[in-house]
Amino acid sequence: MTASRPKVVIIGAGFGGLAAAQALRKAPVDVTLIDKRNHHLFQPLLYQVATAALSPADIAAPIRAILAGNRNTRVLLDRVEGVDTARKEVRLASGAVTSYDWLILATGARHSYFGRDDWAEHAPGIKTIDDATAVRRKVLLALERAETETNLERRKALLTFVVIGGGPTGVEMAGAIAELARKSVSRDFRSITPQCSRVILIEGGERLLAAFPPDLSAEAKTAIEKLGVEVRLDGRVTALGPDHVRVGDEIIATHTAIWAAGVQASPAAQWLGAECDAAGRVIVGANLRPPGHDDIFVIGDTASCAGPDGRPLPGVAPVAKQQGRHVAAMIMDRSARPFRYRDYGNLATIGRRAAVIHFGRLRLSGFPAWALWCVAHIWFLVGFRSRIIVGLNWLWNYLTFARSARLITGEIA
Amino acid sequence: MTASRPKVVIIGAGFGGLAAAQALRKAPVDVTLIDKRNHHLFQPLLYQVATAALSPADIAAPIRAILAGNRNTRVLLDRVEGVDTARKEVRLASGAVTSYDWLILATGARHSYFGRDDWAEHAPGIKTIDDATAVRRKVLLALERAETETNLERRKALLTFVVIGGGPTGVEMAGAIAELARKSVSRDFRSITPQCSRVILIEGGERLLAAFPPDLSAEAKTAIEKLGVEVRLDGRVTALGPDHVRVGDEIIATHTAIWAAGVQASPAAQWLGAECDAAGRVIVGANLRPPGHDDIFVIGDTASCAGPDGRPLPGVAPVAKQQGRHVAAMIMDRSARPFRYRDYGNLATIGRRAAVIHFGRLRLSGFPAWALWCVAHIWFLVGFRSRIIVGLNWLWNYLTFARSARLITGEIA
Repeated sequence: MTASRPKVVIIGAGFGGLAAAQALRKAPVDVTLIDKRNHHLFQPLLYQVATAALSPADIAAPIRAILAGNRNTRVLLDRVEGVDTARKEVRLASGAVTSYDWLILATGARHSYFGRDDWAEHAPGIKTIDDATAVRRKVLLALERAETETNLERRKALLTFVVIGGGPTGVEMAGAIAELARKSVSRDFRSITPQCSRVILIEGGERLLAAFPPDLSAEAKTAIEKLGVEVRLDGRVTALGPDHVRVGDEIIATHTAIWAAGVQASPAAQWLGAECDAAGRVIVGANLRPPGHDDIFVIGDTASCAGPDGRPLPGVAPVAKQQGRHVAAMIMDRSARPFRYRDYGNLATIGRRAAVIHFGRLRLSGFPAWALWCVAHIWFLVGFRSRIIVGLNWLWNYLTFARSARLITGEIA
Repeated sequence: MTASRPKVVIIGAGFGGLAAAQALRKAPVDVTLIDKRNHHLFQPLLYQVATAALSPADIAAPIRAILAGNRNTRVLLDRVEGVDTARKEVRLASGAVTSYDWLILATGARHSYFGRDDWAEHAPGIKTIDDATAVRRKVLLALERAETETNLERRKALLTFVVIGGGPTGVEMAGAIAELARKSVSRDFRSITPQCSRVILIEGGERLLAAFPPDLSAEAKTAIEKLGVEVRLDGRVTALGPDHVRVGDEIIATHTAIWAAGVQASPAAQWLGAECDAAGRVIVGANLRPPGHDDIFVIGDTASCAGPDGRPLPGVAPVAKQQGRHVAAMIMDRSARPFRYRDYGNLATIGRRAAVIHFGRLRLSGFPAWALWCVAHIWFLVGFRSRIIVGLNWLWNYLTFARSARLITGEIA
């Protein structure tokens, strides 16, 4: 590497940051990728860790290992404290300072509790491995406690699981919990029968999976109800505590609420002093730059970028990946071209037998959609050695209803 | 189940407790198995979780799932607070009380710091999944910090790993760390080369693997030195801090010390008010009962039971399993017979190409021993679905030197 090569700093090794780093791997630039975790996470399958079907290592790979072949790339495990756009420097928690010629912000999003951050304690979301193992612990401990609880009211509350948010994550979580609590484990417990447990899915809008066409939303609702999930549409959560969720006027006694309702972008907008939308996403132009910053790009869940219909593009992996590659191409030929999202469709899975898929004119549901979803997800785990392992785990779970990663870690009580 | 059937309470679902429960599965008794964790752990492979080769779920299975077919068995996730031997009751942390006709104590052992419990913080041991992921985190973070550390002294300390204790666990840990730090990761880091890192194995006695014949100890030493591990025999640790280990007069600068030197039995002896040895193990007679208690059995690492040579039997899985089955047989026919340990030999592995095996007259070392060790361990993972997964993971690690479970969980800094 020579000192005169431009320095590209990428913050965040999610789908967007990693795609940018990969696209730049043969470019005459020095890339520094900074992440506060040592692993890239295949977030779309995180709910399977939370419901004990997969192990964390099945869906996460060390960033260093993924980029080991990129000789122009350095990986730093560090936390970003701020960006000095005038001096073109990134300040890190370790005290180090990294200067850039080009900066790519791909820091992703966290849950948002719409101003009720005190709810986080009672209704955890799932965005990281630690989130997912915490939810897994919570779900499994509730089942364990129900097994020995003799008070019927308390037992009912322990066996009631509430998922808040009817987007793909909420639907997937509710379906997976229903299978875990109603089928997989009932064989192993002596006093829990499948009929004992309730899974309730609460959606604030008038239908599940609002990003899909209405007929697929309706099919998803039917499919998830078949798994035993109670769906509450137009349900507004007004209170949340350790032992209850309040939806409108109804109080649901539960010890296990899970949040899948909203996200908030990471503080990249504050670092830049840039304009952001209500969800904290940096508002960028068609060339993915915030106004006034020609050397900075914001991509993925961190950015609010208008799609062809004027509405912001959704926070999904394909958008982030395509934006990462687009930014890399602009850096390589020093151009500015508008980003155009190629939409290959939407998928959501419902338990282990159904899914809905919307691919332009193609609409699939039920088992064929589920089979296609499996193939697509295993396919996209490229770069993980885990493709075989995940495939085998799924096959095993499918055939036996076993949940092989049913571990409660940490001390009890 | 009828009320008149004898009640057998087993505390602990390690190798001993599980073997007893399995042997009793068709007996006309009601079995209650109590453990403070929800999973049985295949402890002999825990060092592979600590060194990122396997995932926790590969070597742990829910106790309920293992015993799901035992219709006479109930599993309780709870912590034992004490035993009332007069009333024949076990008091649990949840407040529940379980009465027994027969009690089997199989609670295992923890590390012992020989009275220096303050060392635990700086030199964690590995007995549980949480221990192993904590050690994994410590080792991987040291490598990450070394990558960006510019001060040479501090960098050297970050790349120095000290394993205390030259028994099978210590030898296996040291070998696995050497491979991780010197081979697997060097490809992924930019400023760490294999020559940078040191792994030091400290043994208080005059040879490694004291339970093996002297010639195999010598072979093990040669094999582990070939992996780049420095072995210090007759080394006494006199001080331990966050950034150093003192051995005799020498101070070794290190941020990663791991304890594999001693174990202490769980407090079963206190529950009974029974006599115990220096390691806290309950002293039992040949029929595995503590004197004065005809309805209580103590097995596995919790018991001190004299072998044919008068010395206590070693704390290994085969002893615990055979004792579990022996106790079950005595309960079933209401007899008292002396326990006789059938010794099928000793194995220890050294990195990914060598092992030593002592099977009566058979002594094996090097690659043939390693191959046999692999087959034996995969074989004994019976009852786990993970046999295939562990096999594939090993094959993959062997062929590629990759460490697939290299995850740092928890927040950094």
